[in-house]
Amino acid sequence: MMLSALSTDLYELTMIGGYYVAGLSGRATFDLFVRQLPPTRTYLVAAGLEQALDFLESLRFTADDITFLRTVPALAKLPRAFFDQYLPALRFTGDVWAMEEGTPVFAQEPIVRVTAPVAEGQLVETALISEIMFPTSVASRASRVVEAADGRGVMEFGARRAHGIDAGIRAARAAYLAGFDSSSIVEAGRRFGIPLSGTMAHSWVMAFPDEASAFRGYADVYGEGAVFILDTYDPLAAARMIVASGLRPKAVRIDSGDLIELSRQVRRIFDEAGLRGTAIVASGDLDELRIAEIVASGAPISGFGVGTAVSTSSDAPALSGVYKLAEIERGQRLVPVLKRSHGKRTYPGCKQAWRVVRDGVAVEDVLSLANDDSPPGGQPLLREVMKGGVRTWRPTLAESRERCRQQVALLPRDVRRIVDGDNYPVRIRLGS
Amino acid sequence: MMLSALSTDLYELTMIGGYYVAGLSGRATFDLFVRQLPPTRTYLVAAGLEQALDFLESLRFTADDITFLRTVPALAKLPRAFFDQYLPALRFTGDVWAMEEGTPVFAQEPIVRVTAPVAEGQLVETALISEIMFPTSVASRASRVVEAADGRGVMEFGARRAHGIDAGIRAARAAYLAGFDSSSIVEAGRRFGIPLSGTMAHSWVMAFPDEASAFRGYADVYGEGAVFILDTYDPLAAARMIVASGLRPKAVRIDSGDLIELSRQVRRIFDEAGLRGTAIVASGDLDELRIAEIVASGAPISGFGVGTAVSTSSDAPALSGVYKLAEIERGQRLVPVLKRSHGKRTYPGCKQAWRVVRDGVAVEDVLSLANDDSPPGGQPLLREVMKGGVRTWRPTLAESRERCRQQVALLPRDVRRIVDGDNYPVRIRLGS
Repeated sequence: MMLSALSTDLYELTMIGGYYVAGLSGRATFDLFVRQLPPTRTYLVAAGLEQALDFLESLRFTADDITFLRTVPALAKLPRAFFDQYLPALRFTGDVWAMEEGTPVFAQEPIVRVTAPVAEGQLVETALISEIMFPTSVASRASRVVEAADGRGVMEFGARRAHGIDAGIRAARAAYLAGFDSSSIVEAGRRFGIPLSGTMAHSWVMAFPDEASAFRGYADVYGEGAVFILDTYDPLAAARMIVASGLRPKAVRIDSGDLIELSRQVRRIFDEAGLRGTAIVASGDLDELRIAEIVASGAPISGFGVGTAVSTSSDAPALSGVYKLAEIERGQRLVPVLKRSHGKRTYPGCKQAWRVVRDGVAVEDVLSLANDDSPPGGQPLLREVMKGGVRTWRPTLAESRERCRQQVALLPRDVRRIVDGDNYPVRIRLGS
Repeated sequence: MMLSALSTDLYELTMIGGYYVAGLSGRATFDLFVRQLPPTRTYLVAAGLEQALDFLESLRFTADDITFLRTVPALAKLPRAFFDQYLPALRFTGDVWAMEEGTPVFAQEPIVRVTAPVAEGQLVETALISEIMFPTSVASRASRVVEAADGRGVMEFGARRAHGIDAGIRAARAAYLAGFDSSSIVEAGRRFGIPLSGTMAHSWVMAFPDEASAFRGYADVYGEGAVFILDTYDPLAAARMIVASGLRPKAVRIDSGDLIELSRQVRRIFDEAGLRGTAIVASGDLDELRIAEIVASGAPISGFGVGTAVSTSSDAPALSGVYKLAEIERGQRLVPVLKRSHGKRTYPGCKQAWRVVRDGVAVEDVLSLANDDSPPGGQPLLREVMKGGVRTWRPTLAESRERCRQQVALLPRDVRRIVDGDNYPVRIRLGS
């Protein structure tokens, strides 16, 4: 999972080569933020900071990295000293302020703010965007799923649909941060201590001559903890067979068909036979809308396995996350800068975001300059997390998860609504 | 990039534990295929096999892996010998047949077919789906972009939007396989020998007191090879400034605004000043539809940087890729099996897919049993790539890229059409 220093766009290297030759070594501030929320989001949940800081702390060019860079045609005009002296010594020595993981965040608010010598700040652009934006996408979708499930269990099952297993592991962490109970990815359990869930696939059932021997074979190994998949052939016949066989699984999983209707019929079969303790969980292309519908129906489903919707943030698979220069040192002082590109204008200066909470409900955020003489009040959302290249923030994942729970709960109910949620007001008190 | 053996869903482990205890050690065949194409695809391009086979060849449980697995509650009932003897010795010893990378593929056709002892075949499900499906998504989208660009250059710029840098690197490889000319990800260049492209960001321009000194500073380092970004402030003013300054960049990049109109105006400014050799490339949320529009307009744009559309396959960020048991050994012979789940029925038996080509155009595929007495003719699409756990196929990326070019060109033009493309006929000659 540790990224090489070459985990970046080539232009970051052409630019730092250019800064080296031009002698531009002053400090600069960059803001990482989302230009606008996807249509299906009314808030985002910041995530990925832990991995982003790991990257910054460990950033260095190895001899192998540099050997490769010497062969890149686009870098051929750079002086020998860039490769011999500058790159081997390069470390990230900047200061980083950021929203803590689990914090709800809105468009234009810096999620991460980097102040560093301009080349260092520039070099880390690609990896920082990538390390923050994907987990933030996932945590944001997962938070909606948790809202929709309204207290029922939610399990992350998206490994196979994620964009590679590495993406799946990142997604599992982000989903857990946002309130999921568990993940199916074993490596995510090892790496982050996330509780693991998972039982049997249809192939287990198909591998036996009949469903009864498949379930019995599984119960012989796993006993009371067994969860049977019900829909390999006919879910109702499978439920009746379980009853007839005297098996008492902890739960059954339904993965296809009309989940609401099937769950009711299966519940009736089990209840009539006294299997009141056998829970029903559902999976199969679930998302927050489908889950909200199931919950509203009162269907007897106590937990949901959610895959693609969360592990790829399928309805919004990318955020418009950008990393923009906000100020740069000129003659010993940091001067605000902005770009004016059509539709992509940025706000200059070193910023802080404030969340104003009244009676336990967040009423607005205010984006102002960090050195504003009369700060707008409320909670400052950006805090120092790295100073001079050294981390000054290191919560556990459990702490970040609890933070997320508390901070999302502060958002107005109408903003958290799954369908037609209200926009949350962010007041921008900045020059431009 | 090398995956641990724990890069899997927990249920693969509960199932192999179950097979171990139940003594089920017969062989089985699994098919990896896509249930149905996304609405915006008329064909897919198979990719990721190289990495999938790497995974299968190197699969083993390390002592650390096993130490962790002993602590997983769901596995607590497995016998000690499962951890002490079975897991340490486990290797993938199966046979694999697959579509070569770069082959166009359609719904229901096996992309990979695994025949192995059932536990081995089961264990690799999650990683195989993940290793094949994401690159296949990307190659499929990238192939459409290449079609739309109609011979103009296409550069993969999607690292920052990919689901982590690892996903970005996989995407860069898949895009190159499908005909992209280059990628911006330096690590993809190192790992796969993909040509690298990239020049400057807006921040380079903003870091200087004015645009003229920014461009001059860059040209001082990179000379003739320089590509300037034109839209930090005002693209037309920037073009005039380039002319006035006597700079002669290789190309300029426009990243925002009305690309068609701007490119015409910039072209005119350059041509009138004799900068006919300075090319114009475009970027900024481009996809195959936008590129087709630009190409149709005749705008003087000679190359496109494409990011999100390709690196996340944004319009179809997940394929319905599944890995299903097709036959299993019972009493010394492999017996066809199927599931009947609502809407997710599978076809039983060991399959081969054939592509019937007439006069240089593919006219239909036929899916039949591998041991069909009267095969339908045409090219068999699945070939042996691994025998007894050892690879028997090892093309270079350049070879796979050339294969892709040739095989996509065989598809009917109406199937390759970007908008309202025709469906390609796949005839299923199987029992059910």
